[in-house]
Amino acid sequence: MPDSADRAAPSGTLPVSFADIEAAASRLEGIAHRTPVMTSRTADARAGGQLFFKCENLQRGGAFKFRGAYNAIATLTADQRRHGVVAYSSGNHAQAVALAGRLQGVVTTIVMPKDAPSAKVSATREYGGEIIFYDRYTESREEICAALAAERGLSIIPPYDHEQVIAGQGTAARELFQAIGELDVLLVSLGGGGLLAGSALAAQALRPRCRVIGVEPEAGNDGQQSFRAGKVIRIPVPRSIADGALTTYLGERTFPIIRALVHDVVTVSDQMLVDAMRFFAERMKIVVEPTGCLGAAAALSKRCHQPGERVGVLISGGNIDLARYAELLR
Amino acid sequence: MPDSADRAAPSGTLPVSFADIEAAASRLEGIAHRTPVMTSRTADARAGGQLFFKCENLQRGGAFKFRGAYNAIATLTADQRRHGVVAYSSGNHAQAVALAGRLQGVVTTIVMPKDAPSAKVSATREYGGEIIFYDRYTESREEICAALAAERGLSIIPPYDHEQVIAGQGTAARELFQAIGELDVLLVSLGGGGLLAGSALAAQALRPRCRVIGVEPEAGNDGQQSFRAGKVIRIPVPRSIADGALTTYLGERTFPIIRALVHDVVTVSDQMLVDAMRFFAERMKIVVEPTGCLGAAAALSKRCHQPGERVGVLISGGNIDLARYAELLR
Repeated sequence: MPDSADRAAPSGTLPVSFADIEAAASRLEGIAHRTPVMTSRTADARAGGQLFFKCENLQRGGAFKFRGAYNAIATLTADQRRHGVVAYSSGNHAQAVALAGRLQGVVTTIVMPKDAPSAKVSATREYGGEIIFYDRYTESREEICAALAAERGLSIIPPYDHEQVIAGQGTAARELFQAIGELDVLLVSLGGGGLLAGSALAAQALRPRCRVIGVEPEAGNDGQQSFRAGKVIRIPVPRSIADGALTTYLGERTFPIIRALVHDVVTVSDQMLVDAMRFFAERMKIVVEPTGCLGAAAALSKRCHQPGERVGVLISGGNIDLARYAELLR
Repeated sequence: MPDSADRAAPSGTLPVSFADIEAAASRLEGIAHRTPVMTSRTADARAGGQLFFKCENLQRGGAFKFRGAYNAIATLTADQRRHGVVAYSSGNHAQAVALAGRLQGVVTTIVMPKDAPSAKVSATREYGGEIIFYDRYTESREEICAALAAERGLSIIPPYDHEQVIAGQGTAARELFQAIGELDVLLVSLGGGGLLAGSALAAQALRPRCRVIGVEPEAGNDGQQSFRAGKVIRIPVPRSIADGALTTYLGERTFPIIRALVHDVVTVSDQMLVDAMRFFAERMKIVVEPTGCLGAAAALSKRCHQPGERVGVLISGGNIDLARYAELLR
């Protein structure tokens, strides 16, 4: 883990600034939900700390992804917006781009893996996105997306490696800090790093003493490896129930921010995700998808905080097939 | 359905007044959650109206019942509190009394049916209540409760037929009206009538033009029968998945309030409850128990409102065994 001098030094040259997050927040005002922050005495007792759950599962489109997608589309030129956008996504970013496009009158094309959860596919379609499927184990979504962009003159809205996407995602942590005051730790789901990078930028500006920690599935710990190695490490496509965190490498834009501003990256098992998911359903009465449980799993297993600390947990999303959800709850 | 003259006339002589609700609200301030009011564009589109969901599934103890139980215990004399309280309940009231008792340092004994959902039994136990089981098909919970009260000098906190319980339950609708402004209709789960009576009293004081409608399971429509007959009708124990609305008759105190101030009582099928439960999980990411879905089922089936109307829906609770929940979601 870099010491604090290392962490502070390069922030002036990072690809996104807190001013970008503030601008994104203005664009999202009255459009994205200011999602509630929930607490649970039972969770506090189990974790031995004070937990504050920022419920992005209750965000429009069912995940934080709406923030970045909307912000990215809002910052396109009029000409770009007229041509439309294309995005690739394992699910939540797809829905987010489709919804954000519809709200801004922009045509959307979404490249999705064939094995994406059917609830996410149908929601994307309902929001008006045109869907093109690919095989995530044999094809490159980036290449398919680039070809479509070239053919049709579309602007690509990547799921995380994009300045305005990162800036949009940072608005969730900004709201949490505004609502809750001081936090000792902030636990954030880590896939490609958009939410984590945005959260770290918000923390640096608003709560510089808060330790921002990324949480990955054990099976897909490319972020942890990269963070420790100080360079982007690529891994094969991982297999985990956290279907929103099956990324194989961090982004060119997210990695330097994470390296500079994040305190640590930890991993949790699929079983810990299921336990957290069950806890959310049984005790807090909210539906959280496995990827959305990453931060809570780390909090409930007490691996990132000291007794009595104030711990923010970003619940990233709640989109899951009901059949699959039912299977995991039993 | 009585006309408005009939409805207004007897309210001066009702057993509970809006002042009682205001007093209850003061006692609950900072103790009960001021639960969020959620909206969903998808729900609005399906219902053809504007729906406002008051989320008492997110209340302490997982249901609105905490309000009435806490208020009833808070209004006991010091001597009564020292002796302790006893309550009978199919589940949510049990948890509520146990939790409210613990918070006020009052010993609680709970008489529960043997077939109560195990999540409710274990939560009641966790909150510190002593549990005594009975058979809901052969024994009288009132008699068991009365015997315990006599033997041990306990005060009975009934689940609905009690002035201070009704007053406490009325604080939920009061909060909804304060948060949302005008409503054309308010849909309320109806079991023994505590929530419905309290809601009707709050509406009469704050939104006299709002139509307050009770919603029951088809199989247990004693409330509808009683409302139409103008007197309390008793039915055999109904079988419905709405385990919080398996009451067989309205209360001596709830019925006159319902008769005077409620606009109508409608019924919904178990299948409609399951559909609403699935909708809450899939689209709104919240866990609602079948009884808590009564109002939403009526709203989504458009049986109580005109197109475009503003419809309040009281979600009464979210306590359900995960195994049972998983079974119903599939």
